[in-house]
Amino acid sequence: MEIKEAFLGKKVLIAGGLGFIGSNLAKKLAALGARVSILDALIPEHGGSMFHAADLPSPADLTVADARDEAKLIPLLEGRDYLFHLAGQTSHLDSMRDPWTDLEMNCRTSLAILEAVRKVRGGTKVVFASTRQLYGIPRSLPVRESHPVVPVDINGVHKMAAEWYHGIYHKVYGIPAAIVRLTNTYGPRMRIKDARQTFLGDWIRRLLKNEEILVFGEGSQLRDFTYVDDASDALLLAACREEATGQIFNLGGERAISLRDLADLLVELNGRGSYRIVPFPDELKAIDIGDFYADYSLIRSRLGWVPSVDLREGLRKTLEYFRAHGEHYL
Amino acid sequence: MEIKEAFLGKKVLIAGGLGFIGSNLAKKLAALGARVSILDALIPEHGGSMFHAADLPSPADLTVADARDEAKLIPLLEGRDYLFHLAGQTSHLDSMRDPWTDLEMNCRTSLAILEAVRKVRGGTKVVFASTRQLYGIPRSLPVRESHPVVPVDINGVHKMAAEWYHGIYHKVYGIPAAIVRLTNTYGPRMRIKDARQTFLGDWIRRLLKNEEILVFGEGSQLRDFTYVDDASDALLLAACREEATGQIFNLGGERAISLRDLADLLVELNGRGSYRIVPFPDELKAIDIGDFYADYSLIRSRLGWVPSVDLREGLRKTLEYFRAHGEHYL
Repeated sequence: MEIKEAFLGKKVLIAGGLGFIGSNLAKKLAALGARVSILDALIPEHGGSMFHAADLPSPADLTVADARDEAKLIPLLEGRDYLFHLAGQTSHLDSMRDPWTDLEMNCRTSLAILEAVRKVRGGTKVVFASTRQLYGIPRSLPVRESHPVVPVDINGVHKMAAEWYHGIYHKVYGIPAAIVRLTNTYGPRMRIKDARQTFLGDWIRRLLKNEEILVFGEGSQLRDFTYVDDASDALLLAACREEATGQIFNLGGERAISLRDLADLLVELNGRGSYRIVPFPDELKAIDIGDFYADYSLIRSRLGWVPSVDLREGLRKTLEYFRAHGEHYL
Repeated sequence: MEIKEAFLGKKVLIAGGLGFIGSNLAKKLAALGARVSILDALIPEHGGSMFHAADLPSPADLTVADARDEAKLIPLLEGRDYLFHLAGQTSHLDSMRDPWTDLEMNCRTSLAILEAVRKVRGGTKVVFASTRQLYGIPRSLPVRESHPVVPVDINGVHKMAAEWYHGIYHKVYGIPAAIVRLTNTYGPRMRIKDARQTFLGDWIRRLLKNEEILVFGEGSQLRDFTYVDDASDALLLAACREEATGQIFNLGGERAISLRDLADLLVELNGRGSYRIVPFPDELKAIDIGDFYADYSLIRSRLGWVPSVDLREGLRKTLEYFRAHGEHYL
């Protein structure tokens, strides 16, 4: 696969690199021979963790600072080939309870990153990890990139704005940028402490703690999932392939699964556990989007990406990881 | 016209009420018997002016404060029937030079207004003055509300985000909100000091100062214009008509006109002056949108709005106003 050679000796910065996806990506890039630096603000409850710094080649490669701090960010961008932008806030619920922090974490952080890249003028390619959240309630399934963007919560609005910033800085200033819309990424290092970011993390924690899983609604809702290694591969392809510049790509899973079937699968893989179907809490119902699964044929045809880890295998690895390292996440 | 009765004795707050459109609206509302209060931060260079406070019924009706200051905003919202949200930054150029201020003025201000309305829970109807800018480069003309939203500058992104905030606070919290997308509003009290907000303001200043008008491009670009009294009527209809809640409406002009013809018309109405066709400055060319004129058939059919002041008459009144009061605007 071409990813193998593309990053050898390249200088890469990962903003949000101590988080779930960022740290998995860092590990992979280091294995590909890239010179990886990480910028992470380690904001409490956002997923960044010093436990994820263990894989870094040297302590010098980590800067604990906020991307909104230009004095810290600009020196990190000098001579940088690639910047992966995984900084930000991803909780839909948090964005409704506290839109201010979401505005700062998503809008201001993205602007800070792009303004810094613009000022440095080093030709750094930027890959922004966006989300399927901004499609809102699907009008047709599977959801393609041409589906209207209809965010249902503040986080969706701000992620949408962040996408547009990248598009405008690309068009107006010539900054090479690509956008990947992630959908339900899961795997080792995901946040499982509570239900603020993903329901799957909440379910995994409950399984590990021998608590009953709560399935909201009727359990019939469909979702697709991407294993974190597959998501990382997509981000790498979007970085190293020139034809990705200026584009937006969906990711997706190899299949859509109902929440009830997912709960069954998790309990089976765990060897024990149970779940209960309960009504949606009001706060979540107001921003729920019903069935969702993505059409990822664009990135498949343009960049050759397909999910390579199936859900059973991915969940098995995830449970295995958290059985070994759960104490760092609970 | 039903506007006549709708506002008699009603408590109205205008955020940004010392600005161009806000102060024209305040004057009209006062004439309709409304109890008008104004909130304006009087941020330098944003269009708000103490000169516009002269029409207020009493000094107590003006609060000079920022809408982001919740302690000031919340008391103003108690028992308020209508809130017109005309606070914000409208310069496309400024938004590219300083995206931070645009983020504050448009995103944070809009969130502050909606959060305050949500907290007060008084059923205040919110009317947000948005802009045709967020359509970007028209894919078809005239531009309808269903045209894709493709902002070409940071101001467009933030106005788009502000629209979505209103939609989400309407759907999730039941706050009655309506959005009007203004297009090239002009008239007495518009900002003419420089070209940061509208090229027409710049032209009018040059005419008044006996300077040559600079027409960018080839002069063939088409635009439509709304006289400020017509824009005010549209905002009033969006406020008082229940069927406007949750909706987005375009405004438009009675005709589209080329920039060259507009320059000819202005020179003719002024009785003297001249213009010159010059190439676009780079900074403006990067965010220019080509021809634009709006389809306003939705607000015409739903709310009965049509532009009532034609361009010749509107420009005549505008020049007359600035001949009398120009010293407050230069």
